Amino acid sequence: MIVTVTPNPALDLTYHVDAFEAGESLRVDGALVRAGGKGVNVARVARQAGERSLAIAAVGGATGREFTDELTASGLENVLVRASGATRRSVAIVDRSTGETTIMNERGAAVTAADRAGLTSAVRTSLADARCLVVSGSLPPGMPNTFCADLVRAAHDTGIPIVVDAVEEALVAAARAGADVVKPNRAELRATTGLTDPIAGARVLLDHGALLALVSLGADGMLAVTPHGALHARMPRPLDGNPTGAGDAAVAAVAVSISRGDHDIRDQLVRATAWSASAVLRPAAGELADNFRELEQLVDVVDA
Amino acid sequence: MIVTVTPNPALDLTYHVDAFEAGESLRVDGALVRAGGKGVNVARVARQAGERSLAIAAVGGATGREFTDELTASGLENVLVRASGATRRSVAIVDRSTGETTIMNERGAAVTAADRAGLTSAVRTSLADARCLVVSGSLPPGMPNTFCADLVRAAHDTGIPIVVDAVEEALVAAARAGADVVKPNRAELRATTGLTDPIAGARVLLDHGALLALVSLGADGMLAVTPHGALHARMPRPLDGNPTGAGDAAVAAVAVSISRGDHDIRDQLVRATAWSASAVLRPAAGELADNFRELEQLVDVVDA
Repeated sequence: MIVTVTPNPALDLTYHVDAFEAGESLRVDGALVRAGGKGVNVARVARQAGERSLAIAAVGGATGREFTDELTASGLENVLVRASGATRRSVAIVDRSTGETTIMNERGAAVTAADRAGLTSAVRTSLADARCLVVSGSLPPGMPNTFCADLVRAAHDTGIPIVVDAVEEALVAAARAGADVVKPNRAELRATTGLTDPIAGARVLLDHGALLALVSLGADGMLAVTPHGALHARMPRPLDGNPTGAGDAAVAAVAVSISRGDHDIRDQLVRATAWSASAVLRPAAGELADNFRELEQLVDVVDA
Repeated sequence: MIVTVTPNPALDLTYHVDAFEAGESLRVDGALVRAGGKGVNVARVARQAGERSLAIAAVGGATGREFTDELTASGLENVLVRASGATRRSVAIVDRSTGETTIMNERGAAVTAADRAGLTSAVRTSLADARCLVVSGSLPPGMPNTFCADLVRAAHDTGIPIVVDAVEEALVAAARAGADVVKPNRAELRATTGLTDPIAGARVLLDHGALLALVSLGADGMLAVTPHGALHARMPRPLDGNPTGAGDAAVAAVAVSISRGDHDIRDQLVRATAWSASAVLRPAAGELADNFRELEQLVDVVDA
């Protein structure tokens, strides 16, 4: 089973409008409401790919109840522990005429030490059944930057590999703790290391202690960087669509590979690149298009 | 007591952002969450002015629970009956740098005959304690355009005057049923009657059977039109601020006047104009600035 942790879950509200401009007053259809956050998206994708997955998060308030209702209705296995603050919202407005998306991400309520302890305890309990742990997404206010690193140690204490999708200090700390996979995108890697070259940036994280850095490059594909070398994968041509959730599909691909015992870096990279491209074809994060396995055949990989 | 009915209540989410442009991805503070809808705003304003008020609406789903929680916490007396569909949301994004507001109003879930019967029954029960009934705001999908007219008859059956803030067919039907006050703004009156001149448009509603038409003209003030003549009131100079809720403050002013037994049209118009201007000074709908009584002294009234 793949266990995912979402430190800063959100109730995602998505509006599709005919044309969107700032300053307007619009009548719109009701929002598409989903339990969101990067770890939740990863668990949804892994499940769609046929892998058992469990989403863990701490939620609170009325939005937390709505989050719980949606996640339960979706059939995704979950452990939702109680947070003292209300779950944040994320509002996305998709302009049908241009495809342009406007997003407002609430920062989220500050977490308490008790919230953190409850979440960590739920993760530890779930590790008994896990073949791979994933921690993915931003940290809420009040959550120490060592949170992901602590989960790396907890996973390794029980012999479970862990994939970390985080940024800046939290990512560096997770690398230092020996995360099996770190997955920043190019901009996040630059913000974390100060380096413009993604291979050089990835090597910084490997020097810290990470075993594999997977760096998503948007339409330019993806890099897999290990202490032994770097591979660059891409689709023959970039696909048009919604890039939100593409990184989560890549994380899910790696987690699924690991949980199936496939530790070949090239295989993981191909799968991550194909699933990421497939997610672009879907309107919502946390979903793959039906062709995700076929896309794996199309990926080009070269040494980088 | 003033009883207000909100046929299409909304959970209002307001975001204040430093600068807003379509296509951006922003980190924002949590939304200001309020139980909203025009009738709720009217009840809040009447209460702030010292009048006992009761807000009636039908709410459902997780958003309905949040609506209920907020309204109860605010201390406003309310009767919230159960709706079969989830309460809609309204999302407002206020750009702090320009003051510009972008609004997305969800249309709302369709109401059933049972929803409508439950709401009407709650209104009838509340009329025993009422001195004025207000029905205000859009009708949800599935609600017949006779809804406001039916409430006019229900109010008059028990000798209670009624103020109707509605548009188009629902407004015409309410006028035909003999509504004591109708309150469209200039654009709504044009959409309802097809007439550009607001006095001519108001006379159409009076011909249908309404006793007083109060027409808000934005920065140009307000008209009171009766079968006996028309008065035009305005502030000495327009006030800068947030016009959302200004019309609701005008409705509250008239309802408060009626419930206090003040049936002088000029007094009602002065109060409506001043309270409306005062509401513009407040960031949220449903609130008056502290100076609302002083502003009444500044209103100029001329024959129109």
